[in-house]
Amino acid sequence: MFRNFKIVSNVIFGRGCFNQLDDILASRRTGDDTFVVFLADHVFRENEPFKARIPVRGRDMVIFVNTDDEPKTAGVDALVAQIRAACDRLPAGVIGIGGGSTMDMAKAVALLLTNPGSAADYQGWDLIRHPAVWHAGIPTLSGTGAEVSRTTVLTGPEKKLGINSDYTLFDQMVLDPELLAGVPPEQRFYTGMDCYIHCVESLTGTYLNTFSQSYGEKAMELCLEVFLEAPPDSDDKLMMASYFGGMSIAYSQVGVCHALSYGLAFVLGLHHGIGNCVAFDCLEEFYPEGVREFRQMMNEHHIELPRNLVSSLEDHQLEKMTDVALVLEPLWENALGKDWKTIMTRDKIRELYQRM
Amino acid sequence: MFRNFKIVSNVIFGRGCFNQLDDILASRRTGDDTFVVFLADHVFRENEPFKARIPVRGRDMVIFVNTDDEPKTAGVDALVAQIRAACDRLPAGVIGIGGGSTMDMAKAVALLLTNPGSAADYQGWDLIRHPAVWHAGIPTLSGTGAEVSRTTVLTGPEKKLGINSDYTLFDQMVLDPELLAGVPPEQRFYTGMDCYIHCVESLTGTYLNTFSQSYGEKAMELCLEVFLEAPPDSDDKLMMASYFGGMSIAYSQVGVCHALSYGLAFVLGLHHGIGNCVAFDCLEEFYPEGVREFRQMMNEHHIELPRNLVSSLEDHQLEKMTDVALVLEPLWENALGKDWKTIMTRDKIRELYQRM
Repeated sequence: MFRNFKIVSNVIFGRGCFNQLDDILASRRTGDDTFVVFLADHVFRENEPFKARIPVRGRDMVIFVNTDDEPKTAGVDALVAQIRAACDRLPAGVIGIGGGSTMDMAKAVALLLTNPGSAADYQGWDLIRHPAVWHAGIPTLSGTGAEVSRTTVLTGPEKKLGINSDYTLFDQMVLDPELLAGVPPEQRFYTGMDCYIHCVESLTGTYLNTFSQSYGEKAMELCLEVFLEAPPDSDDKLMMASYFGGMSIAYSQVGVCHALSYGLAFVLGLHHGIGNCVAFDCLEEFYPEGVREFRQMMNEHHIELPRNLVSSLEDHQLEKMTDVALVLEPLWENALGKDWKTIMTRDKIRELYQRM
Repeated sequence: MFRNFKIVSNVIFGRGCFNQLDDILASRRTGDDTFVVFLADHVFRENEPFKARIPVRGRDMVIFVNTDDEPKTAGVDALVAQIRAACDRLPAGVIGIGGGSTMDMAKAVALLLTNPGSAADYQGWDLIRHPAVWHAGIPTLSGTGAEVSRTTVLTGPEKKLGINSDYTLFDQMVLDPELLAGVPPEQRFYTGMDCYIHCVESLTGTYLNTFSQSYGEKAMELCLEVFLEAPPDSDDKLMMASYFGGMSIAYSQVGVCHALSYGLAFVLGLHHGIGNCVAFDCLEEFYPEGVREFRQMMNEHHIELPRNLVSSLEDHQLEKMTDVALVLEPLWENALGKDWKTIMTRDKIRELYQRM
């Protein structure tokens, strides 16, 4: 059985295309009292020129999302309650403007507006029952692939795990490379490496087929070009790398690095991008060629990773980290094959964590 | 202004995934009396094993489409009349199984079932008013990109021109590389070269942006690999090349070769794939690198192109050919820039045709 893969059905790409957002939303605004919700990363709160470009009309809501911590199920529930309290009708759209965290929040809010209960109830695979409110993703940071993926990764009370479903997918992507202009260099590197790393994991995984391989190879090539050669259209290329990297997961999966990174995030609150880099740097035995190229890119960009993050942890924290990583069975199976449990024992995971 | 590009929203890819067509259609069959129309290339008429795999149920219709000639508007009108005569309701789906011609027929039939008049009324850009019947494309020949494109190219009484609209796009693609197994080698080459040639035209054109470039570069790389190295998964790669090649046209256009090939098709009835090859082989001055690689692939596959097709034509035929080619303004502008009319005069076009 092959997955009948759902794809974001509308994409606009180009420098300055953010200016067309008002036109795109016009077709969603069907009556005088319709409103849309803009969820924007809090970095834009004080950015008056950018705020003025958000096409706010009538009763629209603009909510700035704090992304100091990664998205939490409780945060999603609070946003949904806030929107419901403001209006007894559903918004005509939810628009996420930011990096992976903000886009994931927008996806989750769009889902939870039409599905009862807490976001934590839906962490897993295909648990969502009702279509989401129409939602659009506008990346201002590239690499996660959140703009095309069928997941929204949330940290809940018990686990860090995505709400994976076809309804999670955005209905529209607005890919404007100009929006990447102000990203701090370290952040840009860590988020870009998310793409590079999931390409490595996908291309070396056991699930791979030619569909995912074609997207993954091109995404990886674009990442290497952007981070080793810095061509003039680097932001355009990084945006396409992120898109292609996301598409490459269609018939594939991420692997060892992402699984371990989820544990780091859950226990240490380490953000996904940097968490991936910390984990990947210790995974030469699984991804020798990928780690070699990754270090080349780190050198080129003078990146110093934080070290000795795990050595001072208490035992129950290390145990929890291991639990969180072990839940992610499809990732381990993709990386190591059907017999992954014989290779990736609890002891082996602890040993890997202790290098970080 | 950038186009808000619509993408085929569902894709299933994998060897043997054609077997899942029945499951995919199940969600479309909402009542006892719903029916779907399968339009299949006539090469399958005598292929009993393949016919048995088409998941026909209840009142479904299976119609074999003669593709000896390229799709004509009159042929579309006749099929629509045939389906209307058979049932006073609309089908729940139209499924095209074949090469570019059959898929284009399926798209056009799905459009004309819900839009009044003749297919000839809609040749052009964005003339369609009503959404089509749900329609799916299942290529059994790869290279045209018809499975992802927003056009269905038809020859009408006056011109060869596509019905270009967002509604033209398929709702579902079924990409099963096993279905390419029986294609005759010359046909496979000519159709594959359609992809290669539109990548050359797109990548060297003035419309190009990084979205189209990323898809086009990968499609071209896959074509070269398939036709020069023949890896074991050639059919999988050719299918992805065709998909990526089609996507590369999103923010781009084809160019000189396709424009001239349309004229050859209109006057000589030359099929699109071979017509492109005949034209491209004479276009060294516009695409030196592309033509060089193309000839390398021709040599590798022992392809002998037909020659002296135009020399015996009457003058009014050559004039008509030139007219058909000149209509395609976006293609010329993409290839040669805004001042294309100063370069591509009627005399220049005649001169190019006379080499073929």
